[in-house]
Amino acid sequence: MFKNCLENVRKTVPLVHNITNYVTVNDVANVLLACGGSPIMSDEAEDVEDITSVCGGLNINIGTLHKTSIEGMFRAGKKANELGHPVLLDPVGAGASALRTNTALDLMRELDLAVIRGNISEIKTLALGSGTTKGVDADVADAVTEENLDEAVEFVKRFAKETGSIIAVTGAIDLVSDGEKCYVIRNGRPEMGKITGTGCQLSGMMTAYVTANPENRLEAAAAAVCVMGLAGETGWSRMQEGDGNATYRNRIIDAIYNMTGEDLEKGADYEIS
Amino acid sequence: MFKNCLENVRKTVPLVHNITNYVTVNDVANVLLACGGSPIMSDEAEDVEDITSVCGGLNINIGTLHKTSIEGMFRAGKKANELGHPVLLDPVGAGASALRTNTALDLMRELDLAVIRGNISEIKTLALGSGTTKGVDADVADAVTEENLDEAVEFVKRFAKETGSIIAVTGAIDLVSDGEKCYVIRNGRPEMGKITGTGCQLSGMMTAYVTANPENRLEAAAAAVCVMGLAGETGWSRMQEGDGNATYRNRIIDAIYNMTGEDLEKGADYEIS
Amino acid sequence: MFKNCLENVRKTVPLVHNITNYVTVNDVANVLLACGGSPIMSDEAEDVEDITSVCGGLNINIGTLHKTSIEGMFRAGKKANELGHPVLLDPVGAGASALRTNTALDLMRELDLAVIRGNISEIKTLALGSGTTKGVDADVADAVTEENLDEAVEFVKRFAKETGSIIAVTGAIDLVSDGEKCYVIRNGRPEMGKITGTGCQLSGMMTAYVTANPENRLEAAAAAVCVMGLAGETGWSRMQEGDGNATYRNRIIDAIYNMTGEDLEKGADYEIS
Repeated sequence: MFKNCLENVRKTVPLVHNITNYVTVNDVANVLLACGGSPIMSDEAEDVEDITSVCGGLNINIGTLHKTSIEGMFRAGKKANELGHPVLLDPVGAGASALRTNTALDLMRELDLAVIRGNISEIKTLALGSGTTKGVDADVADAVTEENLDEAVEFVKRFAKETGSIIAVTGAIDLVSDGEKCYVIRNGRPEMGKITGTGCQLSGMMTAYVTANPENRLEAAAAAVCVMGLAGETGWSRMQEGDGNATYRNRIIDAIYNMTGEDLEKGADYEIS
Repeated sequence: MFKNCLENVRKTVPLVHNITNYVTVNDVANVLLACGGSPIMSDEAEDVEDITSVCGGLNINIGTLHKTSIEGMFRAGKKANELGHPVLLDPVGAGASALRTNTALDLMRELDLAVIRGNISEIKTLALGSGTTKGVDADVADAVTEENLDEAVEFVKRFAKETGSIIAVTGAIDLVSDGEKCYVIRNGRPEMGKITGTGCQLSGMMTAYVTANPENRLEAAAAAVCVMGLAGETGWSRMQEGDGNATYRNRIIDAIYNMTGEDLEKGADYEIS
Repeated sequence: MFKNCLENVRKTVPLVHNITNYVTVNDVANVLLACGGSPIMSDEAEDVEDITSVCGGLNINIGTLHKTSIEGMFRAGKKANELGHPVLLDPVGAGASALRTNTALDLMRELDLAVIRGNISEIKTLALGSGTTKGVDADVADAVTEENLDEAVEFVKRFAKETGSIIAVTGAIDLVSDGEKCYVIRNGRPEMGKITGTGCQLSGMMTAYVTANPENRLEAAAAAVCVMGLAGETGWSRMQEGDGNATYRNRIIDAIYNMTGEDLEKGADYEIS
């Protein structure tokens, strides 16, 4: 039950190590606090192994890659793997530059990733680039819609199976799969796209959820997607005349802060396919 | 008409590559989304050429310069020039340190800058430092006032002519010139100075405006200045007892988000001299 | 009187050079503006000496250490010391990684620090690590409570005496001492811990307070702690149903922006021991 996933985060206060971009990092930290987790940020190669060792999970986001932070990503990821901490990869901008695409693919090859979360075009880039003998069909459309849903679900399931990672594709319709089951989630609002970093925020929160629910990672990842989308709905319902994307940003984080397990059970809009 | 400039941004959703400081970067991203554009941030030298290639314009802000990001600025700028994308320079702190002054001057020398936007003391620093045989008289006062307005307009016009860039000097009175015409703009409120980064936000938005209005860059740059100032007025009108600079920041971004072409035409307070 | 400390900040508008982490830097800047100071950020080694020279005080925060920013910290600190500017150290995460602990200890050794501000576990780490022949007893509990208050006050006084720095330990109960006197402060609310960076914000503001009150640094540092805590109380009183940590963050900064000397005198909750 999603309720349990949420409550486990609030009960265990998972400490999440974030190597993330400097654009949305403050919001990622506040969202982690809002959901009941606790954030630490560190990307210096010489610092990351110590920091990740005191944490429970690792969130790697390549939104503003630097040469130095890339080294930090590998060192932190390997240490987290050693310690059995879940590692999430958010391949921001994979496909938009060779550095981002190649770094994401290298991280996939060298690390054991519990979750990969991105939009459909980032995930397609990774599926194409990591092409194995089996071959992953990444020939899905650039947005998941009701029309191409079956095909998209198949794609996500196959990529999850091939990588051994939970794959979370977020957009108007969100898909979260471990290769066997696929959650199809319809929470959220289109106006969330007018706020920078809702995806980054979700990746931070999802790492906390997966860390706090080790026996139930798939459900926890799906629960985090529902929390974000539902907070987008609740936050929107509190908007007043003259409010815009800056206020909406705050209202979404506020909604995560106030959400109970019951709210989540009641508001989560998903099916399993 | 400013109305068209605004609507062209909303219609074409210009993707703006920002190499900017880590202090105000989140607000720059949210302002770009609020005005109808779309932001990408990247400063790693190996990443910037790919990123700027998928964008329409480039915003270079030297607010927190690093050795590595300086290289990124030149590589991105040269690529943007090659592609015919407008490049804006925000010389934050030019005059306060040798590194900032010299970097700004080097960028001016090596890049074709569509716009240079700063406060009067930053722009004076550049005018003095780039001194050519013709010589730019930078001996204007440290603030543009009604008293020294004619002199300041002359200075900005001459510097625009000499550099071939649109020069935007912002303060209590804003001046935007291409060397021929000079917009004198009186929108805004003094309390905007109590928010960090309204200048950086404006530079991001101005890049979107100039990108979306290629035939009309001077007017677009002036329109962006009016949008920012008018949003400062609208945002202020929504302040309640107990609100301060944090809430004001949000209300300004909200006002940009909600502004229509009609609002802008009605509220823009400027003359052309 | 705390009132004078606050008013000296508003009157003199101290310019504070911040070398700080990229997580909370925007809030630090807005808090500095809210309290009446003015922020500049710069961490590039080649930039920091020029920048610190035009400022009045220096705030060093090791929250997201990089190799390059470490060099900047030392160069800025030495220049600030030469110029007689107060330097504050916020040893974020000391004890959590060797790099952080060692960097903080090196900064203590090589710089003349006016103030060291951290939580009790960070300060204990420094006290243990900097162990001198006299020996500092860092065997205090991990939180300052009414039960262990006397012991904690003794610890802070001794560490202040030994280092020659004002020591500010913040938590549920805050302690600020110069080795002779110790302010015991009970302003604030536990919900402040659900916002990222209230400690970083306080360090920025405290640097402004100490800079603006050179004859009265201890009182100024204690006043800054009361301002932050009182703003947490005022901000909380303005929270409405559905508000959470994002809105609370804004309300606290707003409260700092609106606080008068009289408000502070009336609301400050402290004793001197």
